[in-house]
Amino acid sequence: MTAEKIPESKNSLPPSERSLAGGIWSPSCPVPSLDKTTIQLAHGGGGRLMQQLIREVFLPLMTGGQPGAGSSSPLHDSATINLSQARLAFTTDSYVVRPLFFPGGDIGRLAVYGTVNDLAMAGARPLALATAFILEEGFPLEDLRRILLSMQEAAKNAGVAFVTGDTKVVDRGKGDGVFITTTGIGLIREGAEIGPHRVQPGDAIVVSGDLGRHGIAILSVREGLQFESPVESDCCPLFPQVDAILAAGINVHCLRDLTRGGLASALNEIAADAGVGMELDEAAIPVSEPVAAACELLGLDPIYVACEGRLVAIVPEKEAEKTCEILRQFPGGEAAAVLGRCVAEHPRIVIAKGPWGTDRVIDLLSGEQMPRIC
Amino acid sequence: MTAEKIPESKNSLPPSERSLAGGIWSPSCPVPSLDKTTIQLAHGGGGRLMQQLIREVFLPLMTGGQPGAGSSSPLHDSATINLSQARLAFTTDSYVVRPLFFPGGDIGRLAVYGTVNDLAMAGARPLALATAFILEEGFPLEDLRRILLSMQEAAKNAGVAFVTGDTKVVDRGKGDGVFITTTGIGLIREGAEIGPHRVQPGDAIVVSGDLGRHGIAILSVREGLQFESPVESDCCPLFPQVDAILAAGINVHCLRDLTRGGLASALNEIAADAGVGMELDEAAIPVSEPVAAACELLGLDPIYVACEGRLVAIVPEKEAEKTCEILRQFPGGEAAAVLGRCVAEHPRIVIAKGPWGTDRVIDLLSGEQMPRIC
Repeated sequence: MTAEKIPESKNSLPPSERSLAGGIWSPSCPVPSLDKTTIQLAHGGGGRLMQQLIREVFLPLMTGGQPGAGSSSPLHDSATINLSQARLAFTTDSYVVRPLFFPGGDIGRLAVYGTVNDLAMAGARPLALATAFILEEGFPLEDLRRILLSMQEAAKNAGVAFVTGDTKVVDRGKGDGVFITTTGIGLIREGAEIGPHRVQPGDAIVVSGDLGRHGIAILSVREGLQFESPVESDCCPLFPQVDAILAAGINVHCLRDLTRGGLASALNEIAADAGVGMELDEAAIPVSEPVAAACELLGLDPIYVACEGRLVAIVPEKEAEKTCEILRQFPGGEAAAVLGRCVAEHPRIVIAKGPWGTDRVIDLLSGEQMPRIC
Repeated sequence: MTAEKIPESKNSLPPSERSLAGGIWSPSCPVPSLDKTTIQLAHGGGGRLMQQLIREVFLPLMTGGQPGAGSSSPLHDSATINLSQARLAFTTDSYVVRPLFFPGGDIGRLAVYGTVNDLAMAGARPLALATAFILEEGFPLEDLRRILLSMQEAAKNAGVAFVTGDTKVVDRGKGDGVFITTTGIGLIREGAEIGPHRVQPGDAIVVSGDLGRHGIAILSVREGLQFESPVESDCCPLFPQVDAILAAGINVHCLRDLTRGGLASALNEIAADAGVGMELDEAAIPVSEPVAAACELLGLDPIYVACEGRLVAIVPEKEAEKTCEILRQFPGGEAAAVLGRCVAEHPRIVIAKGPWGTDRVIDLLSGEQMPRIC
């Protein structure tokens, strides 16, 4: 089926995006004839196609149940469940990263930190984890052991334990070694009220460290790249940073970890949900030398590249510097920086101001820059 | 690697089981040379090999974390989390059933009821669900919509809602259409204290309806079988039954839903964890005419065939008949029956007493009778 036969989808996109399916924003991309009746890899990329799938297919078809407890929107990193005095955060993620082992981590470590980080983005300390394995027939037990050890170490490091789990096995050729789904329950810090609804024009945008290490670590293995200083994934738990900021009395409005789609996706999602515009100082965006070099080589823009140990915090402008100071005390946080601010103008649009007065729109990718990054 | 090279595994099995890998217990099975260094389909079958994988690989490698809350053993259907006054049940399951659509249900319905039933087995009303999809590139959106609608209907029927979710896409040939992982949080009914630790000699064993409908419904599609009266899956939520039994003041000691491995696996697991023996009256085991006929045709023993809407309850003997009466009031519960009792003799061994005084040991299957049944 050609794109022309699905006018409603086509027309819902501004002209610049009709040409996008898997590349960085570029007006000169050719128009691909994307099959709209089946799932595409691009639907998993954290970009516009994924948002469309979630908003147009998942949400309308799955929100007809009767909530059993006061629960928040399913579009945040974690849902909130109110239970007498306690407020619980609840989040689930499947991990399908390839390769399973990469510099600085593996699918097991990712499956722990990715989930506890989603809890942390709600201001929640992890309370318990559940994990479900889909194993492919023929998967080496030795690799499974290595992954489980890594999960145990990561859980210990994050101060949480696995309390329940499940194992399924699928026939050879019907899986890809191992997929892991990790679900977390967290206890939200008293007084924390974190979400896009609290974001206002004037708020500062703070990033907790340099960008793109996870994505480049994965790609360097996939593409067989050798760098002078090898790039390792930044994969780490983020609750300590969140806890420190909240303990210092910072009035945190919103948090988001920078996974699929990187900083660009996180900011676009927050801007859209909060109805604000954002202005970034392009020169303030922290990217390490090796990541910048790799991005140049691979034709990638680091603001779209996934991190697994970085967050963006939206805080009142007067608390931005203090937030940075706290974040800089954590390993990997040396480059924490104020990137820009939220504005009332151009709502839902994120703009980066370049060094020579050039502005560019930081849009959501349409689809997939790097498949199976997490 | 041959079995001979893994003496510790071989020696941990009684002689009768060394010959088992995927069939019903039969002393005349030939010895298969099972590869012990990689995952086998049999590891997913709910039998002895799966228990071995969990006890020897998963548990030792994953229980080094620090529990964030008072939590129970990861071997039950649900873990328990104590939180001020509330006791939460927490459970996760991946669903990889093939075919996706079958008489009486589909993967979506299964992914809801399977998880809420695990909560129910802890005496917990479902509070919130999380769901994670692993989609294969090329999967028809129409099928996805059909599955989501089914999940919505099932969640509504079970009185619960999805509050959070995740979507990942894997390349064509690296998945199998769709895998769904559903995680549930439930609120344990006040006063309910349900688990194998409460099971005692003298307790009665009650089953909530006839056996084997789910497994036979799946197999009938796979094998292209036509029955005079088609067998539909019994897939349904079990909390209403549990709630009714508890509300009637029955002192329920243990509950288990009869999924992978059927009644035989459920009873063997409980007997092993409780350290009791069990004696069943073979003639009391309820199997419908069409299921019995299909089992005969396929060479299956119905007590090993999966149900998705049946449970076994271990209750004090004097409350067994009352339990049956309550269960018989529910659709599908017409055949609820007392099957036998727990005994102090032959601990951990389940014996069925046949009509002519013949006893047989109802053992765990070694591996896989029917792969990908849920």
